[in-house]
Amino acid sequence: MNEKPTIGVFDSGFGGLTVLRALISRLPHARYAFLGDTARLPYGSKSRRTIARYATESARFLVHEQGAEFLVIACNTASALALDAIQDAVPVPVLGVIEPGAAAARAASRTGDVLVIATDATVRSGAYTAACKAHGLRAIEKACPLLVPLVEEGWIGPPVFPEAGTVADAAPSASANPQVAVTDRVIRFYLGELRAQAAAEGFHPDTLVLGCTHYPLLRPLIEKAVSAGVRVIDSAESTAEAATHLINGRANLEEDATGALISLGIDDLDPERKRAGDNTEVHCFATDSVDKFERLGSRFLGLPVGKVQLVDLGG
Amino acid sequence: MNEKPTIGVFDSGFGGLTVLRALISRLPHARYAFLGDTARLPYGSKSRRTIARYATESARFLVHEQGAEFLVIACNTASALALDAIQDAVPVPVLGVIEPGAAAARAASRTGDVLVIATDATVRSGAYTAACKAHGLRAIEKACPLLVPLVEEGWIGPPVFPEAGTVADAAPSASANPQVAVTDRVIRFYLGELRAQAAAEGFHPDTLVLGCTHYPLLRPLIEKAVSAGVRVIDSAESTAEAATHLINGRANLEEDATGALISLGIDDLDPERKRAGDNTEVHCFATDSVDKFERLGSRFLGLPVGKVQLVDLGG
Repeated sequence: MNEKPTIGVFDSGFGGLTVLRALISRLPHARYAFLGDTARLPYGSKSRRTIARYATESARFLVHEQGAEFLVIACNTASALALDAIQDAVPVPVLGVIEPGAAAARAASRTGDVLVIATDATVRSGAYTAACKAHGLRAIEKACPLLVPLVEEGWIGPPVFPEAGTVADAAPSASANPQVAVTDRVIRFYLGELRAQAAAEGFHPDTLVLGCTHYPLLRPLIEKAVSAGVRVIDSAESTAEAATHLINGRANLEEDATGALISLGIDDLDPERKRAGDNTEVHCFATDSVDKFERLGSRFLGLPVGKVQLVDLGG
Repeated sequence: MNEKPTIGVFDSGFGGLTVLRALISRLPHARYAFLGDTARLPYGSKSRRTIARYATESARFLVHEQGAEFLVIACNTASALALDAIQDAVPVPVLGVIEPGAAAARAASRTGDVLVIATDATVRSGAYTAACKAHGLRAIEKACPLLVPLVEEGWIGPPVFPEAGTVADAAPSASANPQVAVTDRVIRFYLGELRAQAAAEGFHPDTLVLGCTHYPLLRPLIEKAVSAGVRVIDSAESTAEAATHLINGRANLEEDATGALISLGIDDLDPERKRAGDNTEVHCFATDSVDKFERLGSRFLGLPVGKVQLVDLGG
């Protein structure tokens, strides 16, 4: 293992930058290669066969051309529908976002009843319900297909993540901004339907999993819209946590444990201090729409994304 | 020319079914092959190079595998960015939606100032502004990227187009339906920004072109939201009209004019009576998401779309 490991992070678009952001804050001393398959997004409305083909092509690029030693599938749809296919396609450890999200829900829920909001394809796959069931939880999943375009168009108010080194802005106000007001109404519509379904099925949910890597940018609005006592789980954070454990576990096998922890930047620093420093290398790739990626990506990453390189996967 | 011509209609998704619908009402005695490149939609946020590659592959399928003798590019983005590439790629007449929309705006406008709403990529191409300029019109284009997902999710109230043989429903009411209310607010936000820009640039617009084949389904809401005296131009209708002239022109060259007109169903019948009858054959193809196409397509077509066949263009 290199002193500075290369971690590949993949998403259909740039929503997965929320996972990269959470990874960097835990593992700043690493080289990151992020690929957004923007030429073929959104995956959320496509079939399993198509998603598996796209995702394995993307995974091979990160491993074979960028030298990724670990792969984080920072895309709920690809994790739900193509994780096995990706694991078969590349010779490195692959982590998806579904299982960490379900594990975090297990840790958070007292009633054992969980709600999940996600894209159409993720919900149709039933992957969260299956993962939650394996943890002894009951789950109801709800597709919220308008939330991704609302986030991508920036109808979300001021940045949720501050630029590095600054203080977070106040939560966006739905009353002051007509665009945020629209997003707020859409969120409340979806959550209202989900609440009605939960009540009809005799659920007592106390946990809501954000099952899409775009949704962390809506977290302040979602937290204001959920019922009292419902805790919001961000699968980006849970996944970064699980990836840190996975990567440390690997490192422990091959190196002196203390050395590995230090080389990966995992020490006992305050998490807030583990921000991207000189040791973090981030290389972003996209299959299309580099302009949009560069324009909006920093909003997701909470850091400037820098120059995004265009790659052609032949799709 | 066959007695019953094959007309190929292409869109990135199924929005172009609004153009097919308008074509069928004018040319019921034809065989239609419609292809929605749903595996790779939306085109609206992608680059010219990618869009040209996708669109020419789709055009070749319709011409070489379905025998289309005419091609209607029922997609504003592909018309704006790839019409030349498609015309170079296939040996049949190809008609886009931009020029017919601009010509209809020319016929409708008295002030010579025109507004156009469309996708991001269409607006960035400047194709409507160029086409309007060629007709002596000034144009301001505005990207309204949230309208396509709102239409595709059905946040548009009751069907705008009646099923064949029934009477149209009343216009959707924004006050009665929270989903329609969201769409109404989004439309009013975009039109408000467009109005402010027009005022700032000293425009006196009296015409609004719907520069996206999804937008005809929002026409009742848009007509209620535009300023008094602004006429709404539906490029689907304009394109079908232009295609009818093109196809008749071709037919006239090769056959007795009257015979051709009759064989194509273009006679002096009342337009309302020119609905799909036993003579219309419609074959729908999609590169993915056949379920969604079948579920939502009839809403766009105003007729049942029937069985949609999956095709693989290798993307």
